[in-house]
Amino acid sequence: MPLTTFKATAHLQDGVQVKVKSRNFEVTIDEPRELGGMDTGMNPVELVLCALGACQSIVARVYARKFGIEFNDFWVEVEGDLDTDGFMNKSDVRRGYSDVRYHIHIDTDAPREKVEEFVDFIEKTCPVGDTIENPVNLKRGEIFIGSRV
Amino acid sequence: MPLTTFKATAHLQDGVQVKVKSRNFEVTIDEPRELGGMDTGMNPVELVLCALGACQSIVARVYARKFGIEFNDFWVEVEGDLDTDGFMNKSDVRRGYSDVRYHIHIDTDAPREKVEEFVDFIEKTCPVGDTIENPVNLKRGEIFIGSRV
Repeated sequence: MPLTTFKATAHLQDGVQVKVKSRNFEVTIDEPRELGGMDTGMNPVELVLCALGACQSIVARVYARKFGIEFNDFWVEVEGDLDTDGFMNKSDVRRGYSDVRYHIHIDTDAPREKVEEFVDFIEKTCPVGDTIENPVNLKRGEIFIGSRV
Repeated sequence: MPLTTFKATAHLQDGVQVKVKSRNFEVTIDEPRELGGMDTGMNPVELVLCALGACQSIVARVYARKFGIEFNDFWVEVEGDLDTDGFMNKSDVRRGYSDVRYHIHIDTDAPREKVEEFVDFIEKTCPVGDTIENPVNLKRGEIFIGSRV
């Protein structure tokens, strides 16, 4: 399935709670109390970091054999810096993340040089990493004004 | 809390299943069977679309009053085009999304011009939209090689 169109919907609930859905999977999104939410789920910018770590983990699993790397455990810590004054419309700073960093944890007997080569590959093969790091053509489609069907 | 560092972890499970966590919230990520998974959750690129729709929904809720817009229902359809030959390492295409589109559904009595102005504002104020549309400084931190603590 080379050129694929992935889809999702987001449906606003009470307050800033949102039910997001893709295929038959649903996740509850919300904001912590200090950002005006009811704290019933992670928030959208945390979800982006999760997507990155998950994507890197999947690339690691899929390509480990190709690199001759066996591991017992693989996890990623991801963090991103965002100035919330942008979202609060208090300043002209960019609205999204300026910087995102990740730390890879791998339990393996493979030598460090080989692991580094593997991580270089993960970095350049990860679809979410590319989506975050490089510009994407983001376009508004239709605006449907009317009652819920 | 202007400059804020958000955090998440992703922990690879069996196959390509990943448990992602931010604060005390956890979500299961996986791939559909045709992409080599067990289909126990949405995949990372679907999660990115969810993050975008959720973020736009939250901006809508927070700023509706400022625009004098009342609505009974707000939801967003998001879709993105990605060539999976990139991830499969079969071609030199970019690994991530080339295009992401969204359609806004709003149940309101407000006139269309006012709704369009509101949607323009949502577009330029949404942190995830900015993160996807514009380059982010993505950096690898440490690689920790060793046993699970």
